[in-house]
Amino acid sequence: MRLAIIGFGFLGRNLLKIIWEKMSLIREIDKDFLIVGAANSKGYIYNGDGLNVERLITTKDISKLSGFRAEPALNLIKNDLCDIIVEATPTNINDGEPGLTHIRLALSKGIHVITPNKGPLVLAFRELTELAKKNDCDLLYEGAVAGAIPIFSLVRECLQGDKIIRLYGILNGTTNYILSRMFFEEISFEIALKEAQEKGIAERDPSYDVDGIDAACKIVILSNALMGRDVKINDVERVSIRGITQEAISLAKKANYAIKLIGTINKRLEVAPKLIPINHPLCVHGTLNAIHLETDLAREITLVGYGAGKETISAILNDIITVLKRRTRK
Amino acid sequence: MRLAIIGFGFLGRNLLKIIWEKMSLIREIDKDFLIVGAANSKGYIYNGDGLNVERLITTKDISKLSGFRAEPALNLIKNDLCDIIVEATPTNINDGEPGLTHIRLALSKGIHVITPNKGPLVLAFRELTELAKKNDCDLLYEGAVAGAIPIFSLVRECLQGDKIIRLYGILNGTTNYILSRMFFEEISFEIALKEAQEKGIAERDPSYDVDGIDAACKIVILSNALMGRDVKINDVERVSIRGITQEAISLAKKANYAIKLIGTINKRLEVAPKLIPINHPLCVHGTLNAIHLETDLAREITLVGYGAGKETISAILNDIITVLKRRTRK
Repeated sequence: MRLAIIGFGFLGRNLLKIIWEKMSLIREIDKDFLIVGAANSKGYIYNGDGLNVERLITTKDISKLSGFRAEPALNLIKNDLCDIIVEATPTNINDGEPGLTHIRLALSKGIHVITPNKGPLVLAFRELTELAKKNDCDLLYEGAVAGAIPIFSLVRECLQGDKIIRLYGILNGTTNYILSRMFFEEISFEIALKEAQEKGIAERDPSYDVDGIDAACKIVILSNALMGRDVKINDVERVSIRGITQEAISLAKKANYAIKLIGTINKRLEVAPKLIPINHPLCVHGTLNAIHLETDLAREITLVGYGAGKETISAILNDIITVLKRRTRK
Repeated sequence: MRLAIIGFGFLGRNLLKIIWEKMSLIREIDKDFLIVGAANSKGYIYNGDGLNVERLITTKDISKLSGFRAEPALNLIKNDLCDIIVEATPTNINDGEPGLTHIRLALSKGIHVITPNKGPLVLAFRELTELAKKNDCDLLYEGAVAGAIPIFSLVRECLQGDKIIRLYGILNGTTNYILSRMFFEEISFEIALKEAQEKGIAERDPSYDVDGIDAACKIVILSNALMGRDVKINDVERVSIRGITQEAISLAKKANYAIKLIGTINKRLEVAPKLIPINHPLCVHGTLNAIHLETDLAREITLVGYGAGKETISAILNDIITVLKRRTRK
């Protein structure tokens, strides 16, 4: 299969490195596997016989490489130059672009799509999954929610007989970092936020994280993917962590609770600060994410892992291998 | 496919109930799925057109049912009466019997085997997995380690690109219950053990649990299955929790640590009491189990769930569905 990486930022570049390192493992599954394209916002580089990956990895700006075409990445998809894309352009939850157009076109042409990009999934989950089904191709998005925690493949492959009843999760590492610092260091929200911004964990405009928008996006995707619902971001009630004071956290701590921003899928969908007993498996700290499932058979399963960063490549690579195993005739 | 359940104790009986409840889900995968046999230590009941499951579930002792044959369960396997067995006879780590003979014969005849029975896996892992491979049939054992935590299918299906570097686990619910009671209630080992025995969590002879033998069995299976090793129970160093005093636990607690019986797969294989920071994801309490994986890509993933009891049926049913999906021509 011929793979193209659309979106060549932090994740795209690191993914390419890891695929290169793991090439012999991948070629055991698909001996014809090639990386043929890599696109950024200015254009793309393409070679039908396989890109010179070492050159790509060591280049700061691929736009300056000879052979770089200043054309929309969409052309890589349009002209049947690949069989599978990793869509890793930045998340945009307003209109999903440019990812939504990339994914829509790819699926409509039967090209398999792997994406850690939440925007298109939040806005058009049902449309895209149906498009994939209709065109007999795969749409996998393990990296889109809780980074390296393999929640979608776990439910799909490891809990096949279970019915998921409820889900609770710490789905945003930035807010967990802030709340953990407030809990352990007894500092205010403002100082913890500033520290997170200085460390590059929080954005200059932190509202996407601290007001629960990011976690709400993940609740939408989890609900639609794991529980067969068809919900939108406005169906998720949201409460920010901006109102959480040091006093509230200290009081909770004295009673052996921590305050965590919890995404909930139950009758209602919600992202809000909650008191969690410090001995509960969901009560993890720092930038960790955690997902607590309640099912009819296993009863309770909790998964903990890193929600963002390089670790997400574990999820993306697992999706790639899943597609290759399903689709490669040996 | 025709399924037989060998070993009709707590797990076998509850498995039958759950399969019956989930029959429509299972028949979506394999429309010809039938439960044809159920065996206990005295003999078996068999019907090639499918057992009367409701009668079986409501009967206290299946030996008294009409049609019960006082013959070894092995005959169910020998006479090609089934395509897949769930081997759920009691664990015996001395010679693996009767499970080892059942599993060996089934695999040698190309019959798929699903088992929560640790004995045969601890004693003959390599032999049995090679036998399955040679005869093109499946040997799955998700329920054998950490009950409802789907550790084997997780690594197989959800971390396909990751390399497992180290593993740490709370793999025995009885000892975790005892240590948790000592931690929270500040009682002695002797009293906590007695309480666990009264609740039916610990056996009258608790050495299998408290001396780490059970956890060591699980370390053997995990090492062989997840890390391609070929180790035996004697390769695992063991330290009992009998020497853990209330004083040691109190001192640890003051420093924000708990003492847990941890199974370790690193250069050395070990089951021993360890200090775990109370805020670490592995630090779970009560009868919960937890497995903490270190991998090259995801870095750290922790799974928490129930290690024994009815919840194990989640794992067994997932194995059954996996075999049906792999092996059923639609």
